[in-house]
Amino acid sequence: MIKDSHTHHISQQFNAELEEVRSHLLEMGGLVEKQVNDAVTALIEADSGLAQRVREVDDRINQMERNIDEECLRILARRQPAASDLRLIISISKSVIDLERIGDESTKIARRAIQLCEEGESPRGYVEVRHISDQVSKMVRDALDSFARFDADLALSVAQYDKNIDREYKTALRELVTYMMEDPRSISRVLNVIWVLRSLERIGDHARNISELVIYLVRGTDVRHLGLKRMQEEVKGLTAERINVLDTPDDK
Amino acid sequence: MIKDSHTHHISQQFNAELEEVRSHLLEMGGLVEKQVNDAVTALIEADSGLAQRVREVDDRINQMERNIDEECLRILARRQPAASDLRLIISISKSVIDLERIGDESTKIARRAIQLCEEGESPRGYVEVRHISDQVSKMVRDALDSFARFDADLALSVAQYDKNIDREYKTALRELVTYMMEDPRSISRVLNVIWVLRSLERIGDHARNISELVIYLVRGTDVRHLGLKRMQEEVKGLTAERINVLDTPDDK
Repeated sequence: MIKDSHTHHISQQFNAELEEVRSHLLEMGGLVEKQVNDAVTALIEADSGLAQRVREVDDRINQMERNIDEECLRILARRQPAASDLRLIISISKSVIDLERIGDESTKIARRAIQLCEEGESPRGYVEVRHISDQVSKMVRDALDSFARFDADLALSVAQYDKNIDREYKTALRELVTYMMEDPRSISRVLNVIWVLRSLERIGDHARNISELVIYLVRGTDVRHLGLKRMQEEVKGLTAERINVLDTPDDK
Repeated sequence: MIKDSHTHHISQQFNAELEEVRSHLLEMGGLVEKQVNDAVTALIEADSGLAQRVREVDDRINQMERNIDEECLRILARRQPAASDLRLIISISKSVIDLERIGDESTKIARRAIQLCEEGESPRGYVEVRHISDQVSKMVRDALDSFARFDADLALSVAQYDKNIDREYKTALRELVTYMMEDPRSISRVLNVIWVLRSLERIGDHARNISELVIYLVRGTDVRHLGLKRMQEEVKGLTAERINVLDTPDDK
């Protein structure tokens, strides 16, 4: 659908601009994804140098957000996009907010990594951080891939995955609270890990937001707050409908 | 500036649409502000009925977000706004995200209120919740007022205020951690209060985001990530510049 409308564009320049801003978003996404992984590695390997670098890169991410926002604004003002082009610009300008916040959460994780280097390691929680961060990284990667490929089904799977993260986060939290009660002297260090888990859970939420924007972009339906079941119906249902349309020889 | 460009509009209908979407944003803001206050009251007065109502109202807030988004999209597609009108639409469509998240944090506070009703009260932290929530409520109110009145100075004061909240949040956290170490049996209940404080701190961040959007709307400058000092220079500096412009008899 998006590709079709693109081919009908009169202005090749407009196409190029849309492609450029989309590629800037994906570039920012790649950097943000790396920030998440670096922050977690810094924490697990107690590498305060790496944690410091994560904090420094955050400025670049903020700058990318500003640039992409400006590009979107320029396109809106000069090109007055409609239909799927307008949805693309809206999705990009919203996704950029989530990417920036994922960047923020990564710097928060990096700050905790530095604190744990200074105060000494937490006696528990690293297995859970590793496990949940692997899954959250995959969510961010898949959300960005779904944006790159206009893939609503992949986006749907990201949203579905978020439920797992929430469940595992709660289980990990319960275990860590129990541990703190047994060893109160560890409270401050264990809390650092709990904040990290919370940041990871948030990153999962942001990946889910991006995936919802991809579904909106590709399908034209706002699936936020719908619940997974109805979201699935929207994505799959509209797929079926589209197939019916393709079956019919006349247009409409 | 915004008023000037408005009076020059050819289309009265367009003006009416812009005013309408702005009033819908402020209406949503009013409801969200009430949600924050109700959630905190439910917590402090151990009123699980009120907490439950906060959770139920969240659906309405989500629906308001969708409606305002649709209005913005319709205006972008049909009216192709430029300059300050475009900035208004962008600011509204971004503020709505922050308002919805403030709504989310309120329901999280309500959920903790219900948990504390079930598990028994926390032995500490209510004074801090009351104190910080008073300030955060004021931030939300002022951010919305600054939007209603296109008041960049008031918006700046909200951003400045956010620093206080962050500091008080950290102090409260340190005290509560110390308390948990002294009375490990209270950990789970005190943690509920800590999550509430964290939600309040987030609400402050969102109010700050909205105030930055107001500055962008009124002044045309993107002040995010600038730091308070430069933000102040931008707001005050541009005020001075504007006064100079007004002093000069010829236009430009």
